[in-house]
Amino acid sequence: MNRNELKERVLAANLEIKRSGLAILTWGNASMRDAASGEIAIKPSGVAYEALRAEDIVVLGPEGQIIEGALRPSSDTDTHLCLYRAFPGVNGVVHAHSPYAVAFAQAGLAIPCLGTTHADSFYGEIPCTRALSEEEIAGRYEWETGKVIAEAFAGRSPLHTPGVLVSGHGPFAFGGDAESAAQSAVILEEVAKMALLTLQLRPGGAGAEKALMDKHFFRKHGENASYGQKKGAPR
Amino acid sequence: MNRNELKERVLAANLEIKRSGLAILTWGNASMRDAASGEIAIKPSGVAYEALRAEDIVVLGPEGQIIEGALRPSSDTDTHLCLYRAFPGVNGVVHAHSPYAVAFAQAGLAIPCLGTTHADSFYGEIPCTRALSEEEIAGRYEWETGKVIAEAFAGRSPLHTPGVLVSGHGPFAFGGDAESAAQSAVILEEVAKMALLTLQLRPGGAGAEKALMDKHFFRKHGENASYGQKKGAPR
Amino acid sequence: MNRNELKERVLAANLEIKRSGLAILTWGNASMRDAASGEIAIKPSGVAYEALRAEDIVVLGPEGQIIEGALRPSSDTDTHLCLYRAFPGVNGVVHAHSPYAVAFAQAGLAIPCLGTTHADSFYGEIPCTRALSEEEIAGRYEWETGKVIAEAFAGRSPLHTPGVLVSGHGPFAFGGDAESAAQSAVILEEVAKMALLTLQLRPGGAGAEKALMDKHFFRKHGENASYGQKKGAPR
Amino acid sequence: MNRNELKERVLAANLEIKRSGLAILTWGNASMRDAASGEIAIKPSGVAYEALRAEDIVVLGPEGQIIEGALRPSSDTDTHLCLYRAFPGVNGVVHAHSPYAVAFAQAGLAIPCLGTTHADSFYGEIPCTRALSEEEIAGRYEWETGKVIAEAFAGRSPLHTPGVLVSGHGPFAFGGDAESAAQSAVILEEVAKMALLTLQLRPGGAGAEKALMDKHFFRKHGENASYGQKKGAPR
Repeated sequence: MNRNELKERVLAANLEIKRSGLAILTWGNASMRDAASGEIAIKPSGVAYEALRAEDIVVLGPEGQIIEGALRPSSDTDTHLCLYRAFPGVNGVVHAHSPYAVAFAQAGLAIPCLGTTHADSFYGEIPCTRALSEEEIAGRYEWETGKVIAEAFAGRSPLHTPGVLVSGHGPFAFGGDAESAAQSAVILEEVAKMALLTLQLRPGGAGAEKALMDKHFFRKHGENASYGQKKGAPR
Repeated sequence: MNRNELKERVLAANLEIKRSGLAILTWGNASMRDAASGEIAIKPSGVAYEALRAEDIVVLGPEGQIIEGALRPSSDTDTHLCLYRAFPGVNGVVHAHSPYAVAFAQAGLAIPCLGTTHADSFYGEIPCTRALSEEEIAGRYEWETGKVIAEAFAGRSPLHTPGVLVSGHGPFAFGGDAESAAQSAVILEEVAKMALLTLQLRPGGAGAEKALMDKHFFRKHGENASYGQKKGAPR
Repeated sequence: MNRNELKERVLAANLEIKRSGLAILTWGNASMRDAASGEIAIKPSGVAYEALRAEDIVVLGPEGQIIEGALRPSSDTDTHLCLYRAFPGVNGVVHAHSPYAVAFAQAGLAIPCLGTTHADSFYGEIPCTRALSEEEIAGRYEWETGKVIAEAFAGRSPLHTPGVLVSGHGPFAFGGDAESAAQSAVILEEVAKMALLTLQLRPGGAGAEKALMDKHFFRKHGENASYGQKKGAPR
Repeated sequence: MNRNELKERVLAANLEIKRSGLAILTWGNASMRDAASGEIAIKPSGVAYEALRAEDIVVLGPEGQIIEGALRPSSDTDTHLCLYRAFPGVNGVVHAHSPYAVAFAQAGLAIPCLGTTHADSFYGEIPCTRALSEEEIAGRYEWETGKVIAEAFAGRSPLHTPGVLVSGHGPFAFGGDAESAAQSAVILEEVAKMALLTLQLRPGGAGAEKALMDKHFFRKHGENASYGQKKGAPR
């Protein structure tokens, strides 16, 4: 895809953060990687969503060098870069400070799979990373943040469970492109809210049964999915 | 009624799900049965509310065969079909993933009748189904979902208590037509929110007295109802 | 004041219920008494706020007889009538089903005065009535509802504490006119929300000190009030 | 800066209180001090946000004498004056009754730093003042309110932790100008909401580690800040 399309799609995913109420002020950022070129487009740092234009989106090479754009990239850029390196199938990343997801992150708790709303989009619990060490915080902090996320996905697929909580911080969501990452961020917040309310009604929770979890996840995902329209359907 | 009217009314009920904040993205679906013809119109699967048009609504025969429409019907269609078969007086069904109702469903708890807001529209608690067995989940899952709902209404009227929680899943609401089912879904969520807040103030709750429950329900429903305007009133 | 003005003001107070999010659907109702004529204007029963026009407002005599209007008055009319009889200084009444106030009512708990937001507008706790007896429910129920409210204000002024919770039901708010009753209903809900959140942080609460409660209430009310603009100020 | 600019900026900060949902009705007020002249512009008392115009903003001398404006200044004016005297670097003050911040204030609890959202903008906990004594309440109450705030900042910088809760009352936020004070008020409420939700998931909380707190605060503030755009960047 050409760079303008990449920037337009990253702009739209960033605006979706605001439109969906996942962040106030300039909080949150979205990026997308062009799988073919390896180039990554990301929100500039500290620019208000209301003022954000496609030409403000910064384009980086795979190593993070600026290829196009006059502004500084997001202060979380190294986390995005680290995630793209760790997760080959992930080509969209969205970071937000949505309040219910942040609450789980600040409590240092994974979001348990308590029902089908969660199971429809996230396979199993949405993990919470371990806390960063003092050395990691003092070092290349944002890159280390990406590394503890990757660590939390050992043995798991970031496309089957397209979101994570960074302990003491907040959510990052993933997808095959910027649009699906933004959608995962929206769902993650809604699922976090439902989980918190459920835990108020039944402290300790219970969790969905594996059979139900499998049924719902694979009803929407994978080769036997029956949800949505067939490719090539009239619309 | 002709099929176009049926489709328009089902479209409106689906849009009401979104307008009332009962679902994000493409979650939720509404259907209506034409009592005369037995035909059932339902939302297509996975189509965004913003893009939904009357011509996208799928019309099915009583056995679920597609009569009109080029798109796949909702993945929850079998649940709707099962409910129409089980509940002769029900001609509208709305399914949503509204967060407070989902919280009760995920906790596996009925919504107790804690006051007159609930009693005005739902007679007695809003039941929560038992969990489906592994066999039911592995089998014709959506149809079995309808069956556990019907099971939960043994000895109860789905028009007097026009809503239910499917354990681990979320709410289904009923009505004599699509409009009243959508209204029941809106009220069910509001009542679930009030119940959760009440239980935070008084864990364990208390529940409305039967006399108050009867007074409010029968003030609005049945032959001695005094609420609203008489049939044939000036507007 | 002439009847048209009375009806316009009652219309506006009813629309304020909806605009402020104090009720969904057709829930809630506002009325106002013309102190000079004793006539009371009130919302008709079961009419949607979106469709409500001044000409739909029903005008009643002090005994409840219909003086003007083609529609049935609100099903809660007898409660309004009883309150106007019990509280001579009250000429506006607003009833809503706002969720935080309903939660306290359903829990059978008064809203304690926990801070200055409450003290600015309500002197002392916002009382919760006793539950109605089976006889009262079976009898002239809406009138009896007014009577238990009046009972809850024995020794208290409904203009100093312009709101109440009916146990198991919801809030009624008062004022010298319809506008101030509607404002009290808005504040009551906000104060209920703040109280519930406070009790989550500090179960059991603590309550504002009497000195602070007095300071804030009398800063805004009474002859030594210093809040707002003097009568006759430029605007 | 000239007085009209000062009044326009104070008007905008007051409207931001409403736009951001930090207050209903006429609650809340914003002021700004012109560091050069020492003049302070503040919201008039009891005027609705919808009706507020720049010409309504009251301009005061450092001792509180009215220099320009036909209306009474906010009833909280003495608190603002006291804060400007106590905190030389603070030239903007915003007071609101936003519900989550009020909940902490009513519980008499500081907002603990539970994560990076908080640490990005507030260094350490957001303090809660001690309760005022009966003598302070009976005396020059609003001025004494400013004094207990100043007392809570002994040994702390109101620009590094630009907000405070007045026990039993609500939040005051600070900044180098009216805009940054308003932004601090918005963040304080969001951080209070996140903290309350976190405490629901993990009663007692845990708190961010000092290393993480330092990292995030100094990433955005101070001479080594890396967040946002460099001065003189293209936009």
